[in-house]
Amino acid sequence: MDPRSAVLTTVALWEGGDAVRLVDVPLPAPGPGEVLVRVLLATVCGSDRHTVSGRRTSPSPSVLGHEAVGEVVEVGPGGAVGDDGGALAPGDRVVWGVTVACGACDRCRDGRTTKCRSVRKVGHEPFDSAWPLSGTYARHLLLPAGATVARVPATVPDALAAPAGCATATVMATVEAAGTLAGRRVLVSGAGMLGVAAVVAAVDAGAAAVVVTDPDPGRRALAARFGATETVGTQDALDATDVAIELSGASAAVSRCLDALDVGGRLVLAGSVAPAPAVPLDPERVVRGWLTVTGVHNYEPRHLRAALGLLERTRGAVPWGDLVTAPAALADVRALLTGPAGTAPRAAVVP
Amino acid sequence: MDPRSAVLTTVALWEGGDAVRLVDVPLPAPGPGEVLVRVLLATVCGSDRHTVSGRRTSPSPSVLGHEAVGEVVEVGPGGAVGDDGGALAPGDRVVWGVTVACGACDRCRDGRTTKCRSVRKVGHEPFDSAWPLSGTYARHLLLPAGATVARVPATVPDALAAPAGCATATVMATVEAAGTLAGRRVLVSGAGMLGVAAVVAAVDAGAAAVVVTDPDPGRRALAARFGATETVGTQDALDATDVAIELSGASAAVSRCLDALDVGGRLVLAGSVAPAPAVPLDPERVVRGWLTVTGVHNYEPRHLRAALGLLERTRGAVPWGDLVTAPAALADVRALLTGPAGTAPRAAVVP
Repeated sequence: MDPRSAVLTTVALWEGGDAVRLVDVPLPAPGPGEVLVRVLLATVCGSDRHTVSGRRTSPSPSVLGHEAVGEVVEVGPGGAVGDDGGALAPGDRVVWGVTVACGACDRCRDGRTTKCRSVRKVGHEPFDSAWPLSGTYARHLLLPAGATVARVPATVPDALAAPAGCATATVMATVEAAGTLAGRRVLVSGAGMLGVAAVVAAVDAGAAAVVVTDPDPGRRALAARFGATETVGTQDALDATDVAIELSGASAAVSRCLDALDVGGRLVLAGSVAPAPAVPLDPERVVRGWLTVTGVHNYEPRHLRAALGLLERTRGAVPWGDLVTAPAALADVRALLTGPAGTAPRAAVVP
Repeated sequence: MDPRSAVLTTVALWEGGDAVRLVDVPLPAPGPGEVLVRVLLATVCGSDRHTVSGRRTSPSPSVLGHEAVGEVVEVGPGGAVGDDGGALAPGDRVVWGVTVACGACDRCRDGRTTKCRSVRKVGHEPFDSAWPLSGTYARHLLLPAGATVARVPATVPDALAAPAGCATATVMATVEAAGTLAGRRVLVSGAGMLGVAAVVAAVDAGAAAVVVTDPDPGRRALAARFGATETVGTQDALDATDVAIELSGASAAVSRCLDALDVGGRLVLAGSVAPAPAVPLDPERVVRGWLTVTGVHNYEPRHLRAALGLLERTRGAVPWGDLVTAPAALADVRALLTGPAGTAPRAAVVP
């Protein structure tokens, strides 16, 4: 018997519905290219709450959770490299990409690894699959060969780093899809965690103005503290804008952003990840206005690095820490997961 | 009295509705930066037919017509340069951009000269304005200072060059907006003059397949002769595509193109230049599919040069001449303008 099997770790096993219980399981030895990570701090993404509430489907039983920062415990035989090409070593503080791609299919070869034909996702794999320790609501997770792993700059605290691999990196993909932001008028629709990160990214990119629209006054105030030059409710008129970034997923908000686009304007949709009513698109206006509407889902490896760069550059100027609560224990995950989605700040867990 | 005023030219003056009559007017002397051009061959763009039928508004009286090839007769004091930076001289065979931009407003500075705040258009200016000789249904037209003027390669015949400044250049803008075409599956919706030019441009750019959809069997056959790898009617199912180029302007066709997009797919709308029913857009599909919808209206100066390059490269391989009829006389313009829009081949006039 492998002596390793005597070493245990603990996971919060989601068994469907709102059933979550702590289970001790053997700590696996990482295989070739794999990286065993101890979770330092996990944050609770709204999508996990949607899973537990039934709004989103995910295999069960499984270990949920994908936003976290961890410490490398052990690297499999042959080693593994970070996204910077350097060898990973025990003690490295790291974040990782949500999607794990094959790297070989047509979509991966086309640079669209998030849509890999055999994509796997952190915190989304069945517990009885080849990758049981896929989630971050656990003391440890195992990153498969091919995962994107990025070392975190020492200046970026855990509370900023944990959301980097989901919320912040998705925002960086969204901002990239928005094209040039320097000198542009930017509209951000939805002032949740992604919205305020988009404000910071737009300011960082040199936007001329960053207007935030959100129905909630508290969230609008948060956006102002993160650098929004103006915040408006959803009933207020919007000025013409060059770029609109829609993160709420509400169809009415998508329409509102479309209507606000000036000539040459660009609307990036990233919030629409659940079924919603169709939005009427006027093709003549798209043509005469040279308008563009584009969608972003998850992100590519480069965006994880970009997220860490943004956090490093702005950590002194922006109250990032306000977006994450004081951490709870792993035993409290069930309570955190059954809370409402879309609330700020982000709940945190130290397993 | 200026002796020049004794020299006359003839224009087909459109007086609203279907009233067009030939009028002799003094031949103007070009001012600084202006270029006086003798029209060698003009082709009849469908938009002029829409103007005469009342579907499109344009000031009257005016000289219509914007697609043509001409010969430089005289350059104003101080000279004028072509789009290649070389001085224009009498005898040069040239085409020109449809839009004349100020070059100084915010949109011009932003590289979007087609949407210049004070844009003027060839064949769209009132006869009693500062630019009476703006149209190509005339023996001469005057190109204002700031117009894009491109010398035509000697190997490109008049019948190919005449549509370059409208149909072909617009297609080049559309193809540019479509992004990389090499190795991509391309769908072209609408097999009129722009559609077949888009087929040629897509093949020229190395597309893996170019499928054309059009309700008319004759137009589908034309598209096949221009290099379409497959042609389908509007009732037939479409395979998934990477790029869709919509040139018909029909809302149902826009929806059909949207539905055909594969992950990462891009739809370029260029045909929707008249009011049409809104198209339902599913925001979740845009997000999860990383889809993009973008509009193109007219074109930038670089696309005129690209059009001439395409014609030069493909003139031996593609029956471009079939797209233009044997030329009629200027006196026949009224009859040509009252014909149905959207018919191929393009009617031609030698004034």
